[in-house]
Amino acid sequence: MIDQKESLLKRLQETRQETLTICSRLEIEDFVVQPTPDVSPPKWHLGHTSWFFEEVILSAFKKDYLVFNPQYRTLFNSYYKAIGSHTSQADRGNLSRPSVAEVMQYRHHIDEHLTMLLSQDNLPNSCLSLIETGIHHEQQHQELLFMDIKMILASNHLPTAYISTPLEAAPVPTDEWTSFEEGIAEVGYEGNAFSYDNERPRHKSYLYPFTMSQSLVTNGDFLAFIEDGGYAQAQHWLSQGWDWVTEKNIQHPLYWIMKGSDWSEYTLHGISSLDLNKPLVHISYFEAAAFAKWKGLRLPTEQELEVFLMNSPPQDDKTSYHPNDAKATSGQVWCWTASQYSQYPRFKAFDGLLNEYNGKFMCNQFVLKGNCVATPKNHYRHSYRNFYLPEQRWMFSGIRLAKDTV
Amino acid sequence: MIDQKESLLKRLQETRQETLTICSRLEIEDFVVQPTPDVSPPKWHLGHTSWFFEEVILSAFKKDYLVFNPQYRTLFNSYYKAIGSHTSQADRGNLSRPSVAEVMQYRHHIDEHLTMLLSQDNLPNSCLSLIETGIHHEQQHQELLFMDIKMILASNHLPTAYISTPLEAAPVPTDEWTSFEEGIAEVGYEGNAFSYDNERPRHKSYLYPFTMSQSLVTNGDFLAFIEDGGYAQAQHWLSQGWDWVTEKNIQHPLYWIMKGSDWSEYTLHGISSLDLNKPLVHISYFEAAAFAKWKGLRLPTEQELEVFLMNSPPQDDKTSYHPNDAKATSGQVWCWTASQYSQYPRFKAFDGLLNEYNGKFMCNQFVLKGNCVATPKNHYRHSYRNFYLPEQRWMFSGIRLAKDTV
Amino acid sequence: MIDQKESLLKRLQETRQETLTICSRLEIEDFVVQPTPDVSPPKWHLGHTSWFFEEVILSAFKKDYLVFNPQYRTLFNSYYKAIGSHTSQADRGNLSRPSVAEVMQYRHHIDEHLTMLLSQDNLPNSCLSLIETGIHHEQQHQELLFMDIKMILASNHLPTAYISTPLEAAPVPTDEWTSFEEGIAEVGYEGNAFSYDNERPRHKSYLYPFTMSQSLVTNGDFLAFIEDGGYAQAQHWLSQGWDWVTEKNIQHPLYWIMKGSDWSEYTLHGISSLDLNKPLVHISYFEAAAFAKWKGLRLPTEQELEVFLMNSPPQDDKTSYHPNDAKATSGQVWCWTASQYSQYPRFKAFDGLLNEYNGKFMCNQFVLKGNCVATPKNHYRHSYRNFYLPEQRWMFSGIRLAKDTV
Amino acid sequence: MIDQKESLLKRLQETRQETLTICSRLEIEDFVVQPTPDVSPPKWHLGHTSWFFEEVILSAFKKDYLVFNPQYRTLFNSYYKAIGSHTSQADRGNLSRPSVAEVMQYRHHIDEHLTMLLSQDNLPNSCLSLIETGIHHEQQHQELLFMDIKMILASNHLPTAYISTPLEAAPVPTDEWTSFEEGIAEVGYEGNAFSYDNERPRHKSYLYPFTMSQSLVTNGDFLAFIEDGGYAQAQHWLSQGWDWVTEKNIQHPLYWIMKGSDWSEYTLHGISSLDLNKPLVHISYFEAAAFAKWKGLRLPTEQELEVFLMNSPPQDDKTSYHPNDAKATSGQVWCWTASQYSQYPRFKAFDGLLNEYNGKFMCNQFVLKGNCVATPKNHYRHSYRNFYLPEQRWMFSGIRLAKDTV
Repeated sequence: MIDQKESLLKRLQETRQETLTICSRLEIEDFVVQPTPDVSPPKWHLGHTSWFFEEVILSAFKKDYLVFNPQYRTLFNSYYKAIGSHTSQADRGNLSRPSVAEVMQYRHHIDEHLTMLLSQDNLPNSCLSLIETGIHHEQQHQELLFMDIKMILASNHLPTAYISTPLEAAPVPTDEWTSFEEGIAEVGYEGNAFSYDNERPRHKSYLYPFTMSQSLVTNGDFLAFIEDGGYAQAQHWLSQGWDWVTEKNIQHPLYWIMKGSDWSEYTLHGISSLDLNKPLVHISYFEAAAFAKWKGLRLPTEQELEVFLMNSPPQDDKTSYHPNDAKATSGQVWCWTASQYSQYPRFKAFDGLLNEYNGKFMCNQFVLKGNCVATPKNHYRHSYRNFYLPEQRWMFSGIRLAKDTV
Repeated sequence: MIDQKESLLKRLQETRQETLTICSRLEIEDFVVQPTPDVSPPKWHLGHTSWFFEEVILSAFKKDYLVFNPQYRTLFNSYYKAIGSHTSQADRGNLSRPSVAEVMQYRHHIDEHLTMLLSQDNLPNSCLSLIETGIHHEQQHQELLFMDIKMILASNHLPTAYISTPLEAAPVPTDEWTSFEEGIAEVGYEGNAFSYDNERPRHKSYLYPFTMSQSLVTNGDFLAFIEDGGYAQAQHWLSQGWDWVTEKNIQHPLYWIMKGSDWSEYTLHGISSLDLNKPLVHISYFEAAAFAKWKGLRLPTEQELEVFLMNSPPQDDKTSYHPNDAKATSGQVWCWTASQYSQYPRFKAFDGLLNEYNGKFMCNQFVLKGNCVATPKNHYRHSYRNFYLPEQRWMFSGIRLAKDTV
Repeated sequence: MIDQKESLLKRLQETRQETLTICSRLEIEDFVVQPTPDVSPPKWHLGHTSWFFEEVILSAFKKDYLVFNPQYRTLFNSYYKAIGSHTSQADRGNLSRPSVAEVMQYRHHIDEHLTMLLSQDNLPNSCLSLIETGIHHEQQHQELLFMDIKMILASNHLPTAYISTPLEAAPVPTDEWTSFEEGIAEVGYEGNAFSYDNERPRHKSYLYPFTMSQSLVTNGDFLAFIEDGGYAQAQHWLSQGWDWVTEKNIQHPLYWIMKGSDWSEYTLHGISSLDLNKPLVHISYFEAAAFAKWKGLRLPTEQELEVFLMNSPPQDDKTSYHPNDAKATSGQVWCWTASQYSQYPRFKAFDGLLNEYNGKFMCNQFVLKGNCVATPKNHYRHSYRNFYLPEQRWMFSGIRLAKDTV
Repeated sequence: MIDQKESLLKRLQETRQETLTICSRLEIEDFVVQPTPDVSPPKWHLGHTSWFFEEVILSAFKKDYLVFNPQYRTLFNSYYKAIGSHTSQADRGNLSRPSVAEVMQYRHHIDEHLTMLLSQDNLPNSCLSLIETGIHHEQQHQELLFMDIKMILASNHLPTAYISTPLEAAPVPTDEWTSFEEGIAEVGYEGNAFSYDNERPRHKSYLYPFTMSQSLVTNGDFLAFIEDGGYAQAQHWLSQGWDWVTEKNIQHPLYWIMKGSDWSEYTLHGISSLDLNKPLVHISYFEAAAFAKWKGLRLPTEQELEVFLMNSPPQDDKTSYHPNDAKATSGQVWCWTASQYSQYPRFKAFDGLLNEYNGKFMCNQFVLKGNCVATPKNHYRHSYRNFYLPEQRWMFSGIRLAKDTV
């Protein structure tokens, strides 16, 4: 038990520190803005991840704990209705205060009290378990920070690099495929370590024989779709996707830039000319589905992609903040699946406040699997279910294609 | 073959006539308006169902066929992008012309030419098959006509009855449940008669043991939810559902009316005081999911509901235009399922223009099953998949609850 | 007094009949639709003008009068808040009932009761005066009917003519100007006959010497602006006007149609090739102001235009439903003035309900003067102040240019 | 000439310094946000006022001048279409870069080059005149800075004071009135010093006898309107004003706060309990017009208010950042007039780029006169015409009432 607490404290401290490390490359001004409603200012992430520990853990388990600032309960609540009202997500970028310095004080306060808490005797297991959840929650926000920082820096008149290290040239992808047999597959989380409620319970699913591409779709693959007029041909698109393309006048992936006849791409490493071998990234479900239909192939279901992933070693080494290796089985881009996000048979949501963590979003979202370059180390599971709206694309989303085995 | 053509012609003529019969209770003014974007003016349905036969069948198979009016190709196209531009759906109620009389001439013209076509020699099977599809398409619009007429008549200052026959009192529902065992189930259309592409192919699905209510949720059941404050408690609702409830200030099912402390309900038979034993109808997926969560139960998946339906005789006799018998296994209200509408394994869409019929809508919609009082006779199949957006509720939608067998 | 009442009754009956005559060319379907929020369905005009007599006169002065239908008080109220809630203007086209036949019954009922009222003894002068106002109110709606019918018929896929009489060729305009001297001018209504509150009191205004064009701006004049790129050059436009042009992608006057390189124009007489000598009509204030600036001239103030009109004989003979003679001093198109609509010094609004008739609209509207082809005979006064929002253009609006005398 | 240049340089440097002084109380985060579309981030004001000198003066008159950063031409252009595209005003708060430090470098660069320019020989008068305009332009932005800073600090969860000095109690207002005689008045700028184009030329206007209140409307006066239900009674309101009140649910002036039954007010000095003797401030034209109608009085025209002001000594001494003395004739709050903003007879706009400075906004705005506590010293003229949209109220706007002399 002592070892468990020490190990938990160490991981907690490393995780909390990692969040600050991610933000260390920013100017104060970068912490404040919200160029699109989906983006949260980095200052808000710093506050919210601290609020999570305060609301869920310190207020419940720390002796005589007083909240740091009662205003923050509302301000840094994301979407937990059980707590009461919260700042509208779209207004997070309208707030100049608390300043970054004040939010850092808040973080420091929370960190100190978490350390004190973990030295308390007789901590119930439920508390340790919630700290574990808090660590994973903070890791999720680390990935969101990369997504949001990318959008913030890209939205300036002169897009600014997050880091100046240049990107390496991508290896050549493969055109090989892997086949899987028909039958009952078991999917969902298996084991005793941490997992989210939406990955459970492990259960059986009947799969028909399918074949999965060993390479991710590359920039070059998608450029062929564009050059064939794919964005202008209704027959490839879902009905809602076609509305989206025409209303927003979408003509290329989110961060692609055309100058004259040359394509380049904004990355966290700055603007770089388009590397045709790199994995395609930052596309919507609508674009993924249209590309697959144009190609005469299809997106995998989440069960198929999970079977593929569980048969591959996890790939968790990041060498840059931009996907590079289309041949990697995971760790490059989140792959869209054809599966709308819904509950597993006999799903049981987290208890208490965290009941709102996952279940209430099971509507009109699609599952993505497989991890990306912005996901923190040790946050990968092949049972992990990421989910986004079909029009969203500021996350590191890409495509792995499947087909029916004939 | 001659018999087949004669039988087809007879069914075609009966179906075409039935559409006119449905409209025979309307004033000319009722044919024109569009009180909400989802509703189409009855005049438009009359034109569109004729256009379908002209575009898909007469133009392709009738010798020397000339289109009745080239303007109608655009005007009465619903959503087939392959044909080119079409009138925006939300603008259908802005058109005073063609007049109802002109649309009736158009229908007459199409009917005559279809009769002539069916007397042509050597008609290919594909043509007969498309006529079959056209009959089913027209039947779908007969149900839409009831939905739209209901909204049109209800939207007037003084809601007007479609028919003056009074409603009968509903029989008392049952509280019994039926259990189903774990294992592989086969679902999807099986047979050689007509079915839509989205019902095929028949395929295996792994089901865990479940139990299904023998009664539909009644007005009385739902009133308990309202009286318990269900519309004001976030914890029952999907996140998008809660946004919908608060933004639109939703407080009761679509056609319910509160006067003082008494509830009544607008029906096609006029305004009637709320019968607590009648099946609940005209609710959104959001309301269905919130009710089930409040009740501690759940909505069935589409596979579970199909298994339930295939074990019950179809109930197709309509005695009124409003659901009455909560104990009926089908034929009263379309039941929301927890399944988002997506393609079956190895789904193959219709060819040609009809490729756009179903597949492109497989995004952000939920499946409903089981038929309703507005569905035409002979249009029922237990494999039938109806689908709507989670906020829509002008269709005859209701709830049958399920639970895990323990 | 008897003569006065008889004469009033005669004019009342003629006016009421004229409204029906205007509508006699419509199909029932044309009475129902509302293609833009500004347009009211003709059915609504027929009801509202009757409602005005019922609400303002019959309910107040007719012995034992019972309202025809209490629902109509809300339904046919336009904007009088003192009466309580009313149907939102944008929803008028969503109502199929009351049917046209029912509205005609309502009109008939009101007409009968007005006739009875005028045979009552001892009618107060205030009652006769309100009937006079009701006649003028109905005349205003006759002009609105022409505006709305034009939009309704033009919005159909195949724009339909209101009347089949062909248009005559326009006479050649003149390029002469008339000069007026500096000094105090008296403007506003003078006399004892009917006038609206917003035309009063007659008052002094200091004018600098100005010169007014004897011809209206013609289609040919405005075509030169278009061909010079006027719609694409920000420097001619008011700031709000430029936003309007770019957001709505405005490129020509409302009813102009370009096919290949030929311009034509939808008129109540059908589509006609653009006659360069005809007065320009159906333009917004934004377009009028931009044209004047492009031309190096300016729009007149309302005082200047009133001085011009009071020095010209009224021209009230209509030979068609489309402006034809650019040399006419009035009676062709309403001319935009540079004057925002505001109250005259010592303005006193109508009493009672009619307090809301004019005064509450004195914000963000511009004054137009001079009458148009759709204005009823005998409705002209040079003191008349028409007013519209600067982006509106479905009324018969045009331009008469002015300049400073040097 | 040398003296003139030296004096101009001195005033220029003082003005530029004053802008920085205003911002010296802010945190870096306060420079970045834009809580409403009307507000510009202080960072943007700092850049834009420098851009104005660069674009209008340095680029035209400074030998071999190179623009500091070509991106800034677009970024810091407010609305000058002649220069080409510019950042949408509503997006100014989405930009984290350039950082405040970079904008300060830009300011420094501009200041240095302006000093060099003023040491050049043979500077044309037009250049000196434009520098004069640039000083006045910068002063206008100093007032905007106060308005925007107030909104920014107030929009935080815990509204923050700009300055901690407490407010003094207001002196008791007077209920005396001043009368003016009928006749021709001369209004508009007279003299040879700087004035904006929209104040010219001086011209004659015919005024009827009027009486003006010697006190501004106070918080106490307006509280009586609220307590009488003024916000809920349509009869006081302009039609557009009533729409605004109901759609936005407006129930009090912008910065008023109700807690229990006590009113307080957010000011730049922090939240303060409502002082009934202080001038009312931060109200829209709609509220001003409704209050005057409720009171049975009226707003003055701009000519009447100018005559009042020209007969009073200017009051330019500021002792706080919040209006305090209702008896002051000017210098407390901008007073709404009943005059829509339009051009004076024979108005001639500035030449060149500055042609867009005033004239293109003469549509749908109302004139305000008389200066406020946020206006820089030496920026007052009784001919000055301020203007805002009728729904805006984040400027320091208030009411001085008038009535017709009887």
